[in-house]
Amino acid sequence: MTNIAMIDAAAVRLQGHARVTPLLSSPFLDDIAGRQVLVKAECLQHTGSFKYRGAWAALSALDAEVRGRGVIAFSSGNHAQGVALAARQHGVAAVIVMPADAPAIKVANTRALGGEVVLYDRITQDRDAIGARLAAERGLTLIRPYDEPQVIAGQGSVGLEIAAQAAEAGVGRADVLVCCGGGGLSSGVALALAARAPRLRVRPCEPAGFDDMARSLAAGTPLRNAALTGSVCDAIVTPEPGKLTFPILQQLAGPGLVVSDAEALQAVALAWLRLRIVLEPGGAVALAAALFRREQMTGDAVIAVASGGNIDALVFAKAMAMLP
Amino acid sequence: MTNIAMIDAAAVRLQGHARVTPLLSSPFLDDIAGRQVLVKAECLQHTGSFKYRGAWAALSALDAEVRGRGVIAFSSGNHAQGVALAARQHGVAAVIVMPADAPAIKVANTRALGGEVVLYDRITQDRDAIGARLAAERGLTLIRPYDEPQVIAGQGSVGLEIAAQAAEAGVGRADVLVCCGGGGLSSGVALALAARAPRLRVRPCEPAGFDDMARSLAAGTPLRNAALTGSVCDAIVTPEPGKLTFPILQQLAGPGLVVSDAEALQAVALAWLRLRIVLEPGGAVALAAALFRREQMTGDAVIAVASGGNIDALVFAKAMAMLP
Repeated sequence: MTNIAMIDAAAVRLQGHARVTPLLSSPFLDDIAGRQVLVKAECLQHTGSFKYRGAWAALSALDAEVRGRGVIAFSSGNHAQGVALAARQHGVAAVIVMPADAPAIKVANTRALGGEVVLYDRITQDRDAIGARLAAERGLTLIRPYDEPQVIAGQGSVGLEIAAQAAEAGVGRADVLVCCGGGGLSSGVALALAARAPRLRVRPCEPAGFDDMARSLAAGTPLRNAALTGSVCDAIVTPEPGKLTFPILQQLAGPGLVVSDAEALQAVALAWLRLRIVLEPGGAVALAAALFRREQMTGDAVIAVASGGNIDALVFAKAMAMLP
Repeated sequence: MTNIAMIDAAAVRLQGHARVTPLLSSPFLDDIAGRQVLVKAECLQHTGSFKYRGAWAALSALDAEVRGRGVIAFSSGNHAQGVALAARQHGVAAVIVMPADAPAIKVANTRALGGEVVLYDRITQDRDAIGARLAAERGLTLIRPYDEPQVIAGQGSVGLEIAAQAAEAGVGRADVLVCCGGGGLSSGVALALAARAPRLRVRPCEPAGFDDMARSLAAGTPLRNAALTGSVCDAIVTPEPGKLTFPILQQLAGPGLVVSDAEALQAVALAWLRLRIVLEPGGAVALAAALFRREQMTGDAVIAVASGGNIDALVFAKAMAMLP
């Protein structure tokens, strides 16, 4: 299980590789939220999302000989790009298994970052079987997107930075809103904050209809989403909470927050206008919750993790149309 | 005259106020440029541009009693917002004289940041006379946008950060491309680098048709632009080089670089796609030069200052239409 010592060790391995991302703010966003809003801009991380941290942490933790045989990941999105770049930087192969209907730009980007993309048909082919065969044939190590202790440790480095940056900004007590899919980022940040800034409390944020973590935390037991697709926040849509991440969040996180797709798109537009950063909808749900769920929080300040910025131009145009 | 001691002092006064902005990069941009591209993201500065640094540096250098009577600035853009916010944070009044036909959003933003906006008619009214009358009546101190030693010192803090961040990134020798209007940022950065990283050399970057600094440096004497308006890079269109800034750049800068409006818009789109930051065209000319003027540079790396991100949504849409 991930603990603070693993997070500290991951942060040391990430030094000089992951960017220390800035904590941004705007008086215009403070006005909307009714309190100080601090935005941890992980969209500025390498490959445009926090996923690079977990990927690097996991790869760098492998035994050199094991790592040398290469790694494999299943992902159509941010995890794919994070693993591809971290593997290339380690000088090892990364096989990324992606659905054949994944957006062409994501396939192209993953390839450009050095990933060997293997496409499969969602309807007729079994992703896990393809992955298992490739892994066996080539001795590849699977890098899971969130249910993996070293990945959680890597994402936890975001929490270490938040603890230091919040202290510097004079914020001692606040909710820390984190965009939540499987819960790797949320649980890593929660572990880091519990050790280093216990008055900063993680609250996972999800899109409406895909709020498995919020419902699971409320119910005290893991619950699944009814649907598997159908939100513009596709980057953080997962079927159910992670097996490793859920117990961590059960112990350390506050209640989940849920926003609509329209609110996530509005947050994308406001981040463009007021922070000059590019977010994808799934990376903007925490900011949306900070702005539009003020009655579900207390205190003078809120910290929102803006977890990713890999957005399609057409979706971005839809968000921009929401500007006043 | 501004010197390194003044820049160091300004940087101390800016601590805890101005953001240390990150140095970003993307392998995709490196491929286009044919060398490593490092982008100093000053669009992430408070009010969305480096202008906040100079404004804060100038205000904080005033005698408290003088400052208490308030300040005045002429600007329809980034300098206005920088002065308004820095004045509010100092608890003093800022009168901003803006043309009545300035974009409504810039007027609204300047007011929202606490500025007292005084509008004038470009055709029938004399801006300087209005400013002089207000200054005399209320004892306001004029904060010039670039021909002001403390403003240049404040902008020079960008150069101190570049010197440290480039060293951390292992870049010892490189051209530092800086978006150039009157030359306040270029000359401040040049002074800082001459003292702290003399193998990093400033090169001012301008839009075609408004390349007064490039032509003046080549001619060895200040030359004016033929037109005063007509570039999408409006934020950095000035009639001629600054009286204080030109001699500094003559001594310290390399040859100027010139890009087209279309190239600046392309750089805006690529910064969105590859760095997840929002730039205005005038803030993107240095990145455009890094990407599209490779034959005019030597060396393995180039540093581009992305100086501002206050772009109109319609202009941004025009840039986005240039994506492949």
